[in-house]
Amino acid sequence: MNHLTVPRFLLQLTIMLAASRLFGRLARKIGQPSVLGELVAGIVLGSSVLGIIDPKQESIHLLAELGVILLLFLIGLETDLGQLLKVGGASAAVAIVGILLPFACGYFACRFLGLGDLASIVAAAALTATSVGITARVLAELGSLNEPEARIILGAAVLDDIIGLVILAVVGELAQGEKVSIVGIAGIAAVAFGFLFVTLLLGARVVPRILRWARSSPAPGALTIYAIVVALGLAWLADRSGSAIIIGAFAAGLLMAGTPERESIERGVTELGHFFVPIFFVSVGAAVDVRMFNPFDSKNIPGLEVGAVLIVIAALTKFASGYAPFWYKGRKSLIGAGMIPRGEVGLIFARMGLESGVFDSRLFSALTLMVMTTTFMAPPLLRKLISAGARALPAQIEPGWEELVSGGADGDPKRQAEQDRG
Amino acid sequence: MNHLTVPRFLLQLTIMLAASRLFGRLARKIGQPSVLGELVAGIVLGSSVLGIIDPKQESIHLLAELGVILLLFLIGLETDLGQLLKVGGASAAVAIVGILLPFACGYFACRFLGLGDLASIVAAAALTATSVGITARVLAELGSLNEPEARIILGAAVLDDIIGLVILAVVGELAQGEKVSIVGIAGIAAVAFGFLFVTLLLGARVVPRILRWARSSPAPGALTIYAIVVALGLAWLADRSGSAIIIGAFAAGLLMAGTPERESIERGVTELGHFFVPIFFVSVGAAVDVRMFNPFDSKNIPGLEVGAVLIVIAALTKFASGYAPFWYKGRKSLIGAGMIPRGEVGLIFARMGLESGVFDSRLFSALTLMVMTTTFMAPPLLRKLISAGARALPAQIEPGWEELVSGGADGDPKRQAEQDRG
Repeated sequence: MNHLTVPRFLLQLTIMLAASRLFGRLARKIGQPSVLGELVAGIVLGSSVLGIIDPKQESIHLLAELGVILLLFLIGLETDLGQLLKVGGASAAVAIVGILLPFACGYFACRFLGLGDLASIVAAAALTATSVGITARVLAELGSLNEPEARIILGAAVLDDIIGLVILAVVGELAQGEKVSIVGIAGIAAVAFGFLFVTLLLGARVVPRILRWARSSPAPGALTIYAIVVALGLAWLADRSGSAIIIGAFAAGLLMAGTPERESIERGVTELGHFFVPIFFVSVGAAVDVRMFNPFDSKNIPGLEVGAVLIVIAALTKFASGYAPFWYKGRKSLIGAGMIPRGEVGLIFARMGLESGVFDSRLFSALTLMVMTTTFMAPPLLRKLISAGARALPAQIEPGWEELVSGGADGDPKRQAEQDRG
Repeated sequence: MNHLTVPRFLLQLTIMLAASRLFGRLARKIGQPSVLGELVAGIVLGSSVLGIIDPKQESIHLLAELGVILLLFLIGLETDLGQLLKVGGASAAVAIVGILLPFACGYFACRFLGLGDLASIVAAAALTATSVGITARVLAELGSLNEPEARIILGAAVLDDIIGLVILAVVGELAQGEKVSIVGIAGIAAVAFGFLFVTLLLGARVVPRILRWARSSPAPGALTIYAIVVALGLAWLADRSGSAIIIGAFAAGLLMAGTPERESIERGVTELGHFFVPIFFVSVGAAVDVRMFNPFDSKNIPGLEVGAVLIVIAALTKFASGYAPFWYKGRKSLIGAGMIPRGEVGLIFARMGLESGVFDSRLFSALTLMVMTTTFMAPPLLRKLISAGARALPAQIEPGWEELVSGGADGDPKRQAEQDRG
């Protein structure tokens, strides 16, 4: 881990922020969400191409961690648990099948391809995630956010996130050397769910008071900073309790989702997220080794095989999950297509596997390829499935964190005006 | 320099942000600007008391650097060069005397007290700064911002900042081993002024175009991030050109001060500043060793003597500078009192001296004591000099960066309402 001088740090930050914005803009020009552009920016800046950014460097790594924490905090802030319970059965069916099916198929495929037990579990876990951000973005662009299929997809995606975070905690413990056993896994899952449960129970009494108190401060920015203090504090506490850092950040968001201060907090944190979140995506991209995608080098073939198999499994199993609520009479194909993109949570899994040493960089690159391909795949697929007559939706439907992933409503005059005001 | 794990980093950030907010609030309760509270928070968290924060740790140091850069960028953004030229003669007289007098007296006093040549120069340079933030804040609270004395003070303080930054560049080069000679100093000053001049000349053509282009992006936050990219880029370039990092940041702010995008940029960057700037002040405080203030330990006596002498010189020389525009018929004592607080720029000098090894921690602590005492001194003094009948001023007079130093308008209903809206 090399030491960073101040000028070198400034140069790296300048390049990362500029490149992520430029590539994000390019991605949106060709109809893709901006997160894909940021990943590509990372790949270009990373060690296998230009070698400018080293994602393992301590300070870059810590800034990237702040990016994930803010992202998960914002996702939690936008999660309406009550609304979720109303969509009910159909969403739950999609979510549960959408986790079990990819996990089981992924695990057996990886084992079949000769991967170890632990690596297979982590890789399979990465297949279970769903990117709410990317799907919601595409649905919003197509003007379909209020159709019943869209509600089912979003409900399932949020459930996926919650269950996915618990899976992540389990996998994280396993990756750190915990033995793979039913009892062990059940124990870690209990801790992760337990942390979430206890935090939500106690936090529901404490957090609103902290926010009320913060709001009473005449100092500008107090509310945003105290909210971030709670998020960082819970992230730390989650880690100390044997749960995952991002579960703590997500729980902090959930706890503030119902408060009167939510909107104000979301605006302030989104502003910070514009700075930190791209650093996360760029550093994920920077860890990808593109040389491993070269099919003319025979030693890449096994890795590419794994990648290809994972892509097929990822797409087919999530698509199949759309048909899980067999009693539902709507367009099940649309639901299935909406569940395909893996996005940010899949990347978090992949990075964790790499950092803990469970993956070699080949499997990491294969998983990143899977995440990117499924994400690239979704927008055109959804566009085809939704009948024509798309209209632009008002910008307020779009939650703050989603801005950070998809890049905001294209040319929306209201948002543009808002941005101009500041 | 110890390695920071992610959980430890999160804990330190949580504590730094929470403590700076709490102590800032306490400071304001007793009529002091919040920056003093943040410094005290740093002292309490630093190595000499609780030992929680190590300001020399790489990642904390880099975050603090981002804090100074954003602060100077915001100060530049608020600096109206045209307006400054109008206040003209009186401000210039106050500024120039307010730099020469403290520097000369400070240098000879330090030499007399047995300090080395270089240490004396850096310590004397720290005496030349004026904190626009703290004075403007007090004047605003007392409802006197539009009186002619206030304009002269603010004009002089801004000029002080610009000249102070050039002095900082010179002192920085000297601290890095450049020889102390008239030719050498003139050369460094030429580079620092030259950088500022060339950057402002070329930047005036390029920067508005970048901003216009950034504004055309439909992606939210684009304008703020591109503005920060320019600031970080110029900070890096300034360092590479032999000037100082903060001159680059300040120049970036100056370049955007006259653009139609200024207000929007200021709002976004201020939001980021709420996160980064307190980290700077806390880490400055954390480098102070309070054990050196113990007068019962005989080996502290020399350091305390230096501190006491510096405080007296700092207060008297800046007060005297108020009488420099002898032709001016207003309350010169008020101008002099307004120039006393040293604030953020004085701290930047002190920290630079410590980091470059020119100071021992005793001289650093003495200078921090000087900065804090002159800052503590100003609010009650100004209050006394200004006749009663103070009224609250509208919040829009207060520039964004000043929020970050003083903590905003106390209980101002307009600002409170603004904050509630988001």
